[in-house]
Amino acid sequence: MHAEALDALKAHFLAQVSVAPSILESHSRDESYPETHLPDVVVFAESEADVLKVLEVARTFQMPVVPFAVGSSIEGQVLPVQGGISLDLSRMNRVLQIQQHDFCAVVQPGVIYPELSRQSRPHGLFFAVDPGADASLGGMASTNASGTGAVKYGTMRDQVLDMRVALLSGEVIHVGSKARKTSAGYDLKHLFIGAEGTLGVITELTVKLHPLPVAVAVAKVTFDSVQDAVNCAVTVMGAGLNPERIELVDARAVQAVNQYKGTTHPETPTLWIELSGSGEALLRENLDILRECCMESCATRFILAREEPERRELWESRHHAFYALKRLNPGHETHTTDLCVPISQLPDVVSHTQELCLQHGLDAVLLGHVGDGNYHVLFHGDAADEATWTSIHQVSDLMVQKALEVGGTCTGEHGIGLRKRKYLEQEHGDLIPYMRAIKQVFDPHNLLNPGKIF
Amino acid sequence: MHAEALDALKAHFLAQVSVAPSILESHSRDESYPETHLPDVVVFAESEADVLKVLEVARTFQMPVVPFAVGSSIEGQVLPVQGGISLDLSRMNRVLQIQQHDFCAVVQPGVIYPELSRQSRPHGLFFAVDPGADASLGGMASTNASGTGAVKYGTMRDQVLDMRVALLSGEVIHVGSKARKTSAGYDLKHLFIGAEGTLGVITELTVKLHPLPVAVAVAKVTFDSVQDAVNCAVTVMGAGLNPERIELVDARAVQAVNQYKGTTHPETPTLWIELSGSGEALLRENLDILRECCMESCATRFILAREEPERRELWESRHHAFYALKRLNPGHETHTTDLCVPISQLPDVVSHTQELCLQHGLDAVLLGHVGDGNYHVLFHGDAADEATWTSIHQVSDLMVQKALEVGGTCTGEHGIGLRKRKYLEQEHGDLIPYMRAIKQVFDPHNLLNPGKIF
Repeated sequence: MHAEALDALKAHFLAQVSVAPSILESHSRDESYPETHLPDVVVFAESEADVLKVLEVARTFQMPVVPFAVGSSIEGQVLPVQGGISLDLSRMNRVLQIQQHDFCAVVQPGVIYPELSRQSRPHGLFFAVDPGADASLGGMASTNASGTGAVKYGTMRDQVLDMRVALLSGEVIHVGSKARKTSAGYDLKHLFIGAEGTLGVITELTVKLHPLPVAVAVAKVTFDSVQDAVNCAVTVMGAGLNPERIELVDARAVQAVNQYKGTTHPETPTLWIELSGSGEALLRENLDILRECCMESCATRFILAREEPERRELWESRHHAFYALKRLNPGHETHTTDLCVPISQLPDVVSHTQELCLQHGLDAVLLGHVGDGNYHVLFHGDAADEATWTSIHQVSDLMVQKALEVGGTCTGEHGIGLRKRKYLEQEHGDLIPYMRAIKQVFDPHNLLNPGKIF
Repeated sequence: MHAEALDALKAHFLAQVSVAPSILESHSRDESYPETHLPDVVVFAESEADVLKVLEVARTFQMPVVPFAVGSSIEGQVLPVQGGISLDLSRMNRVLQIQQHDFCAVVQPGVIYPELSRQSRPHGLFFAVDPGADASLGGMASTNASGTGAVKYGTMRDQVLDMRVALLSGEVIHVGSKARKTSAGYDLKHLFIGAEGTLGVITELTVKLHPLPVAVAVAKVTFDSVQDAVNCAVTVMGAGLNPERIELVDARAVQAVNQYKGTTHPETPTLWIELSGSGEALLRENLDILRECCMESCATRFILAREEPERRELWESRHHAFYALKRLNPGHETHTTDLCVPISQLPDVVSHTQELCLQHGLDAVLLGHVGDGNYHVLFHGDAADEATWTSIHQVSDLMVQKALEVGGTCTGEHGIGLRKRKYLEQEHGDLIPYMRAIKQVFDPHNLLNPGKIF
């Protein structure tokens, strides 16, 4: 790293700059990508002005800048593969406004989503995207994150109304509108959402909040086959029940939970369906319709929970599946996929995945945001076990190939980062030259999170 | 026009080419923009290959190309201001697939939305965007159109999953995914949605369909003030009732309908709220909650309609308001605005508009998609009455200024076209250089719908 650049940062930022090994190390990795890459320096921005100053130094000394907040990305998004500055936004963590009557909040990019929901609750509102981990809103926007709430409320893309973005040029632009909809020119907001910090640094977001559901119930429904479970999900969606969540796990996932927790859940494909209603009677009627849909779809068991502790217990095997597999195999590395296909294709695609795992002798659990056609498979293996990892990568490749064949995407919610660049070429090879040209418009010297996406 | 270009088109397209004055004339205007501009030639494309051939001729002879289907744009989007080719896509009007289990349809760009809804109905589905007129899906995507359904289902931007787009380079790209969500690289889909045909020509769309609501009721609710009506809308939205539609008209609009139709509707601000439920009991409970919300918000009257003919009658004054004012003033030109503001700002903004109209002695009706904060004002005047038109333009300018001051947008659903270019500069002056740079990426010689947006 350019000594003058470091001097400039230190002179300006004083204690907000660090080159301490432990700090560099904690900014060298994310939650799932196997490699690490150290930044040369970490700057803890506390304001938009700080972000602009970092970008000025980057511009002056032609240094890479990698935005960072929580480090919970999955595909290597926050890794400074070319060194340079890790721009830590986690101190920009204030909820600036909650606008109850406009159902929105203005937040800094380092706010983590559970905190936004916590602060929204007294207003009768909540934030609907729940990717897991304690992800930051800025990071979530940058990968178009989603989670279990997407089936009803959509992804980050559907929540962001307006953003301020600091550009490498030193400009701050605002993209989008505080209004609920706009048709004012090219939509640059959606260009920055999902850009993984390669086009600009998000310094403020206005995001939608939603009324808290007043009556909630959860049904846990078991099936003999994934096919039946997915057909049930289609039926539920078609009935206009508009569930809060609808999640699938396969038999192996339940088995892993049982092994790990000593429970005796039926080891069979299981759906969790959460419904809400604006009143109790309404919820009851919805639940009757739900039960009918499930019975029509060959459900083998339908268990209902209305009260909070009971609901939490019911969700247990869903929430614990990943961790069960992880903890059953201590010392193993894990690898998660993130495919999304048209929902009608899901039974075939899931069968295909299960066959591949069987053929390659891989142990894996499957979880799905089934209302969206989005599913994850968690693989695991000893880091030194080359044969297993070769199989895992082969199976992952074949899974993506299958998803693309049926009109799906190589990533439903995790983004491209480093790992999926080859898959993006398969999915959108025709678009990559245009993505590069757009990158050129905002970042001609390729300093913003270089090496990501393409 | 280049004679060779015309020869090339005629040689290739035979009877699909026209230079007949009546055809040129019908492609010289839209539904609301006051000017007309004749194209040099109209080509009726019947396939994507036809579109590519037109683009090839345009590229070869450096001729402008303006996509056209129904001609129902409002802000001058389809006017060939520099002559050239009007590329008529209205014959590309086939619904290619309805995928019931994936809740989507694949359509050609010339399909009009009522036709898509008609073909979806036997599958228990409908298409949720209803801008009025018989707009085409390609045109609706190009302006990010919406309508009364947007409060529940979102705008065109929220419906389009995937598109095929023919570029001036001769390439056809596909943007988006058949999957419900994707995080695969920069989102070029949202760049083409709302680009008003300036970046490429949409040749196919995959759009969401939604389950038909099974139980529907409409409430017509009157208030003493627009403030009360809007507060009621906020309360209804906050109660999680998730209405199908929630529409506002002002007292003048009702008065115009009464004058025109000889009816005696109370001449006072009025909301129409349409609710649905997945069952009858459920709808009843929702209606009870709705009635409570309205009474709390100082409603003066609450009329309910459950059956289809009755519901239609109830909507009458909403549907007829614009046409009433038009027909009460035969020979007058009309001018519609299209602002969208954060809903909490709507009472103030509407009061401001009403004061402006009073000050300038303008007669106008106001209609609003109030759940979105989107409203229209319809002005009218004799084309020769310069003083009135000066006032209309002044008031329009001041309305936009006010909307932008409170964080709103100069267009909620009509787009920029020719008329709103000056407003786009006010709203997003910082973004226009980037929009131009992106235009340069896809259309370096500015041949695709030149003169629009910026």
